[in-house]
Amino acid sequence: MHVGPVTIEDEVLLAGVRNNVGFSSPEFVEAMGKMLRGLRKVFGVDDSYQTFAIVGGGTSAMESVVSLLRKGEKVLVVSNGVFGDRWEPLLKRYPLQVNVLRADPGDYVPPEAVEDEVSKGGYTAVTMTHVETSTGVRHPVEETVKRIRDRVDLIVVDGVSAAGAETVKAKDWGVDVYLTASQKALGAPPGLGLLALSERALERLKGESVSGYLLDLRNWLPVMRNFEEGKLGYFSTLPVHTVLMLAKSLELIEKEGLENRIARHEKVARAIRAGVEGMGLKIVARRPEAYSNTVTGVIVNGVDPAKVLSAVINEGIELAPGVHPKLQGRYFRIGHMGWVTPNDAIATIAVLERVLKSLGEDVRVGEGVKAAQLALYS
Amino acid sequence: MHVGPVTIEDEVLLAGVRNNVGFSSPEFVEAMGKMLRGLRKVFGVDDSYQTFAIVGGGTSAMESVVSLLRKGEKVLVVSNGVFGDRWEPLLKRYPLQVNVLRADPGDYVPPEAVEDEVSKGGYTAVTMTHVETSTGVRHPVEETVKRIRDRVDLIVVDGVSAAGAETVKAKDWGVDVYLTASQKALGAPPGLGLLALSERALERLKGESVSGYLLDLRNWLPVMRNFEEGKLGYFSTLPVHTVLMLAKSLELIEKEGLENRIARHEKVARAIRAGVEGMGLKIVARRPEAYSNTVTGVIVNGVDPAKVLSAVINEGIELAPGVHPKLQGRYFRIGHMGWVTPNDAIATIAVLERVLKSLGEDVRVGEGVKAAQLALYS
Amino acid sequence: MHVGPVTIEDEVLLAGVRNNVGFSSPEFVEAMGKMLRGLRKVFGVDDSYQTFAIVGGGTSAMESVVSLLRKGEKVLVVSNGVFGDRWEPLLKRYPLQVNVLRADPGDYVPPEAVEDEVSKGGYTAVTMTHVETSTGVRHPVEETVKRIRDRVDLIVVDGVSAAGAETVKAKDWGVDVYLTASQKALGAPPGLGLLALSERALERLKGESVSGYLLDLRNWLPVMRNFEEGKLGYFSTLPVHTVLMLAKSLELIEKEGLENRIARHEKVARAIRAGVEGMGLKIVARRPEAYSNTVTGVIVNGVDPAKVLSAVINEGIELAPGVHPKLQGRYFRIGHMGWVTPNDAIATIAVLERVLKSLGEDVRVGEGVKAAQLALYS
Amino acid sequence: MHVGPVTIEDEVLLAGVRNNVGFSSPEFVEAMGKMLRGLRKVFGVDDSYQTFAIVGGGTSAMESVVSLLRKGEKVLVVSNGVFGDRWEPLLKRYPLQVNVLRADPGDYVPPEAVEDEVSKGGYTAVTMTHVETSTGVRHPVEETVKRIRDRVDLIVVDGVSAAGAETVKAKDWGVDVYLTASQKALGAPPGLGLLALSERALERLKGESVSGYLLDLRNWLPVMRNFEEGKLGYFSTLPVHTVLMLAKSLELIEKEGLENRIARHEKVARAIRAGVEGMGLKIVARRPEAYSNTVTGVIVNGVDPAKVLSAVINEGIELAPGVHPKLQGRYFRIGHMGWVTPNDAIATIAVLERVLKSLGEDVRVGEGVKAAQLALYS
Repeated sequence: MHVGPVTIEDEVLLAGVRNNVGFSSPEFVEAMGKMLRGLRKVFGVDDSYQTFAIVGGGTSAMESVVSLLRKGEKVLVVSNGVFGDRWEPLLKRYPLQVNVLRADPGDYVPPEAVEDEVSKGGYTAVTMTHVETSTGVRHPVEETVKRIRDRVDLIVVDGVSAAGAETVKAKDWGVDVYLTASQKALGAPPGLGLLALSERALERLKGESVSGYLLDLRNWLPVMRNFEEGKLGYFSTLPVHTVLMLAKSLELIEKEGLENRIARHEKVARAIRAGVEGMGLKIVARRPEAYSNTVTGVIVNGVDPAKVLSAVINEGIELAPGVHPKLQGRYFRIGHMGWVTPNDAIATIAVLERVLKSLGEDVRVGEGVKAAQLALYS
Repeated sequence: MHVGPVTIEDEVLLAGVRNNVGFSSPEFVEAMGKMLRGLRKVFGVDDSYQTFAIVGGGTSAMESVVSLLRKGEKVLVVSNGVFGDRWEPLLKRYPLQVNVLRADPGDYVPPEAVEDEVSKGGYTAVTMTHVETSTGVRHPVEETVKRIRDRVDLIVVDGVSAAGAETVKAKDWGVDVYLTASQKALGAPPGLGLLALSERALERLKGESVSGYLLDLRNWLPVMRNFEEGKLGYFSTLPVHTVLMLAKSLELIEKEGLENRIARHEKVARAIRAGVEGMGLKIVARRPEAYSNTVTGVIVNGVDPAKVLSAVINEGIELAPGVHPKLQGRYFRIGHMGWVTPNDAIATIAVLERVLKSLGEDVRVGEGVKAAQLALYS
Repeated sequence: MHVGPVTIEDEVLLAGVRNNVGFSSPEFVEAMGKMLRGLRKVFGVDDSYQTFAIVGGGTSAMESVVSLLRKGEKVLVVSNGVFGDRWEPLLKRYPLQVNVLRADPGDYVPPEAVEDEVSKGGYTAVTMTHVETSTGVRHPVEETVKRIRDRVDLIVVDGVSAAGAETVKAKDWGVDVYLTASQKALGAPPGLGLLALSERALERLKGESVSGYLLDLRNWLPVMRNFEEGKLGYFSTLPVHTVLMLAKSLELIEKEGLENRIARHEKVARAIRAGVEGMGLKIVARRPEAYSNTVTGVIVNGVDPAKVLSAVINEGIELAPGVHPKLQGRYFRIGHMGWVTPNDAIATIAVLERVLKSLGEDVRVGEGVKAAQLALYS
Repeated sequence: MHVGPVTIEDEVLLAGVRNNVGFSSPEFVEAMGKMLRGLRKVFGVDDSYQTFAIVGGGTSAMESVVSLLRKGEKVLVVSNGVFGDRWEPLLKRYPLQVNVLRADPGDYVPPEAVEDEVSKGGYTAVTMTHVETSTGVRHPVEETVKRIRDRVDLIVVDGVSAAGAETVKAKDWGVDVYLTASQKALGAPPGLGLLALSERALERLKGESVSGYLLDLRNWLPVMRNFEEGKLGYFSTLPVHTVLMLAKSLELIEKEGLENRIARHEKVARAIRAGVEGMGLKIVARRPEAYSNTVTGVIVNGVDPAKVLSAVINEGIELAPGVHPKLQGRYFRIGHMGWVTPNDAIATIAVLERVLKSLGEDVRVGEGVKAAQLALYS
C-alpha cells in the first residue's frame, strides 16, 4: 500500500525473468510495440499521438518536456503540492521563464485562477498534476484545460499517480503531453518514463530546444516509431526487463478492462476513506470531488507518523510517509493503486486501527474496518 | 553473447522478483548500501570516492558528468569509436567547448597524441572510453592518465564495457570519474547509471554547473550518502528491482572474487579470438595489446552480417550488430561479459562456424572450435 | 485460505526455480540433509528418531506405515472424520486385521474409549489423526497416547494438518510414527510424504512386512541416512525442486521460530472463529478444546456451500469444500495454515460476509469483521 | 546433461511459481486436462487410451501396474539393465509369479528370445524398458510386441527415458501400458508418474487386483476422467505445481512439434557420440541400431568416473554416474534429453575432453569437439 513502487502481480514480475533478451531480440521488439500501443489506451489517445517510453521515470518524463520548449519561453506551473512544485526547479535549470500558482495543502488551484493567470498572456505552456501524490488531491484537468486550451501552445499533464486508475481522456480533453511512470497505477516496477505527445507537441519537437541530450525526445522519436513498426531502434539502452514487465502489465490491464480497473480503484479508495473516517481520523484532501482513486493522506493527531510506518510494516503493510512540507509530521499516505483489491483495503484499515491504537492515537478499533466493509458491500 | 543486456544468472533475476518492496523498505535501503559499497571494489576506489547509482544507464551516467562542468569550460573527448564519439553531441547540448581526437576504426588514440593536445592548454576535462563497445578496443587508460594528470582538472573514464571484466584501478590511476552501467560486465539488467567520483570531482560538485535537473549529481549526492548510512533517501524513484538485482550480482562477484572474474573473462575472450581466427576470420581490433576481455568485433568477407545475426539467434546465440559507421556492413560483434563461461565460448564459435559456412562465407568448419578448445586447454 | 496446497511464500517458490539441479548435485544433497534435520524440530523429536521424505504426500506417508506391519497383525483406527476413515480401506488392501472407532462429525473419539478398546488386547498398532482436515477437530493426542502407550507396539499419528502449526512433541508424548505432507502447515508445495520413526519403529522395520515396493521404508532408510551424512542416496527419484522448496520453508520456519509460528496460527484461528461467530454462523468443531489452529469448518443454513466457494474465489479467496459425508452440503472449510497472517483472516471474513449476504444467507455484514478485528487486537 | 532431473526451461519452472493454486482451482483443473490430453500425443495413443498422472514418478507408475494383475498371475520381465531389473523385486512384493530374461550389459534381449519364452505359455503380462537408462540401450519395442501380442494379455513398456525424445506409437505397436515420469525427456521437474492404458488394460482394471491403496489405478481412474471433463477430482493430493509445469512443458513440446523434438534429440545424440568417439573413447551401447536419443554411456580406461563427475560439475556440466553393477567403476553417463541443444552437446564434449585429459585419460583434445561439430554440420 505504498505510493509506488506498488505491489506487483507475480505474473508481471515473472515476465521479467528472462536471461537472454537483448535490445535487438525479437521478443523485446514485440514487447516495445505492444507497450507503446497499450499506453495509448491508458492515456485515452489515438494514433495521432505518439507514445514514448524513455529511461528513468516520472522525473525523466517531466524533464523531457523541455525538448518542446525554446529559449526564453514562459511556462505556468499549476501546483497542488510537492510534485507540482517540482516543475519549478526543474524548468529553472533551463533558460525559460517560470511562474507558479500554488494551492493550499489538501486543495487544488481553481480552474478559474489558472484561466485568469493565462489570460495575462505570454505563456507558451502550462503544466498541471492530475493526481498530486503528496496529498492525494485530484486536479480538475478537463475543466482547467477547457478554459485555457485556446490561449497556450502546450498543455502538459503529469499523470504519474493517475494513469491506469483514473479516467484519462488526453485527446478529448485537449492535452498535448500526458506523462506517467511505470511503477504507479500501471503496476510494473520503476524504470520507465512514459509519455504521449499530440500532433501539436510533435510539431514543436521538430525545432531547436533547450533540452540536454538523453532526455531530448527528438533522439527517442525515431526509436519509438521503429519499434511500433516492428523494427529495431536504438538510442540509449532501455531497461529491457522492465519493458517486458510493463508490456505484461498492460496486457493484464487490457484483460481486466480499463473501465473495470478504474472502477476497482474507485471502490478500494472509497473503502479506504470510509475506514479512515470510521476509525475517527481525517483525510488530507479537503474536497470530496478531489478525492483521488490512488492516494489517501491521513492526518494523525497524537502519534508520530514515522512510528506508524515502522509499526505497520511489521504487520505486512507498507505505507508511505507524508512529504508535504506544510504538513510535516502530521500525516502519512496510503497508496492504493496497481493491483490493489478490496481485501487490501480491509486489511490495511484493520492494521492501521490496531497499530494506531497501540501507539496511543484515539481511534475506534473495529469501527473503521466495519465502515470499510459496509462501503464495500453497499 | 550480446554486448548488453547480457545473459543474466537466474539468481540475479530472481532477486528482483519481490512484489512488495517500496523505496522506503528496509530491504531496499540495505541493497542500496551494499551496492554502493560493492561498486567501490569493482572500480578500484576507496572511501574517498563517492559511488552513485542513478536512473538510466551509460548515457545518463555520461551526461551527469556535466554537473561537474561550468559554463564555457573546455573538454577534450578522446574517441576510439561510436561510444567515444557520443560525448561530442552530448556535451554540445550545453554551453561548453568541445574538441575531439579520433582514432581509426579498430585502433585507439595514442596516449602521446592526448598528451600533445592537452599540452596546448585550456582544457578542464578529458573523457576517454575504457573499452569501446563498437569495436572491442581497450584504451590504455593508465598510461594516458599518467601523461595528462597534472594538466587537467577532471579525468573522466567511461567504463561501460569494462567494469567487472577488466582490471580497473580508478584511484591508483588517478581517474576522477569512472562510470558504467548495470547491464554490461556487472551482469544485471539495464536501468542504472553508475559512477564513482573522486574528492576532486566532489569538490567541483559544490559549485554551479551547466546541468539539467534529473542528472544533476548534486541532487543525488545526499541520497547516496543517506543510503550508505542505512537511512532513507529520495530524489527521484530508483528502479528498485534493478537495484536488488545489481546488489545480488555484486554479491556473486564478491563470491567469485574480482580477480577470478577478470581472469575468467580474459580466458573466454582468448578462446573466442582463437576460434574466430581458427575458422579463418579477422578481428576488428588491430593491436593485440588493445584486445578487450568483453567485446570482439569479427570482420566478414562475403556474407551480410545482419543475416548472420538472424541465423545465429535460431541456434540459441544472440550476437550484436556492428555499429561503427566506417565499417558499415562489414562486421558483427560478439559480447563476452557478465556470466559468460568457456562453454559459451565453445558453443558460440561452433554456431558461428556452421552458420557462416551455410551462408557461404569461406570458413573452416571444425577448425575454429578446435582452436578455441585448445586455447581453453592450454 | 485453502486446506492445502496453501498459499506459499514467493521466497519458497523461487527456491525451486533451479534449472540444473540433479539428484546427485551438492545443492540437492545439502537441501535433503537440512530438510531431514529441520523436520525433527517440527515433529518434536531428537536424533533417536529417523526422519524420512518420500515421494507422494499424506497418503503415501500413511501407506508406508504398512512396512512396519506383519501379516495378520491387528490395527485400531481412531477416526474423527474422512481422513481418519481413510486408514481403513488403505490397511484393508493388506493382510491385516482392522478395527475402527468413529466419532460423530465435529467431535473426537474420547481417549477413554480408545483405552477401553485397546484394553481388549490383541492390537499391534493404533492410528489417530492429530487434526482431522475434514472437520477441523484436533484430537487430544497426548492424553490418548498416555492411556495406551504400554499396551501397543506402534502408535501412529497423522499430523497432516498439524505439523508446523500445532504443538507437536512426538517423542515426549511417546509417538512412534508421526507423519505429515509438505503442502500443509509447512507451507511448501505438495509432493512429499514426511515421517519420523522412533527407535521402536525402526526396530520393526528390520523384519519382513506386508508392504509393496515403493512405499517400503526399508528401501528409503539408507537413502535418508546417506543424505544426513552429506552423501548421495538413491532409491527412486525424489521431487528435487519440491525438496529445495521445503528446505527453504523449514529455514523460514526456523527464522520465524516454531513457537512464534504456532502462536501466529493460534491467533489467526481465533480471529477466524470470532469472525464466523460474529457474523452469526456456527463452527463444525463442537468443543472449544478441540478447535484446531489450521482448519475451521463453517456451517451454513440456507446457501449452497459450492456457490459460496465459487463466489469467494472471484474475490481473491480460495476456500475448501466440506467433505464429511454426514454433513454433505451443509458446510465449507477455511484453511488457515502456512504463511497465513492476521490480514488474511480479516480479508477472508470480510469476503465471506459480503458473499454470504449476497447469496441470501442471514449474516450481519460488518459484525464479523469487527469481531475478528477485536479478537486480533485484544 | 544429467539423466534426470534434466535441465529445465525457465518458462517451465516459472509456470510453477503460483502461490495460490489449490487442487480445486480452475487453473489446476485446466492444467490437468491439458496435460492428460498432451500425454496422449507423446505416447502415440488416441482417446481409446486413458492417460493418468499419479504421485511419484517412474517407480510409482511401474508399481501401479500391479493394479492390473490378479493373485498368482505370471509376468515376464525383459530386462536390459538396472531399470529393467527393478521390475523383479517390485513385482515380487506381490503374490505374482515373475520370470526375468536378462541381456548382457550394453546389449538387449533379442525379440526372438522374448517370443520363445512367451511361447512356453502361462504369461499374463510382459514388461520391457524402451530405453534402459543405466546403459543407454534402446529396446526394439515394436518388433518385440509384434511377436508376442497374441500370446499375452498385457504388454507394459517403461518409457521413462524415451517418451518425448524417441518415436513412440503405443497404439500402433499394440502396447497396453506405456509409462514414463515427468522429469526425463518431457523436461519438467520430477514428481509425477505418467501412464496410458489401453482399453484392454482398462478392462482388467475393473476386477480385483493385488495392489495396495495409493497406487491402485482404480482409485485414480475417476479422478482423471473428471479432470478431462473439466471437473474437480480428488483421491490424493497431486503435486499441483509440478502439474502446472508439466502442462507448460507439453505446451512447449506441442509448439516445437513432436517430430522436430525427436529429430533434435537424435541430432544431439549423434553429435555426442561423434564427440566421444572422436576423442578416442568407447560407448556402452554395443549395437548402433540400439543407440538411444537420450542417454550415452561412456567407458573410461584409466580414470575414476566419480572424479570425472566431480570435475565436470566445476565446469558447469552435470553428468550421471554409471550404475550398472557389471560395469562398476568403468563408465559414466551423459543424459541428453529435455531441452538439450547442439550447443549443449558441443560444450559437454569440450568440457569432457579437457577434464579427462587433465585427469590423465588418453584423449585427443580438440578432436572430439571437432568431430561433434562436423556431425552437427553434416
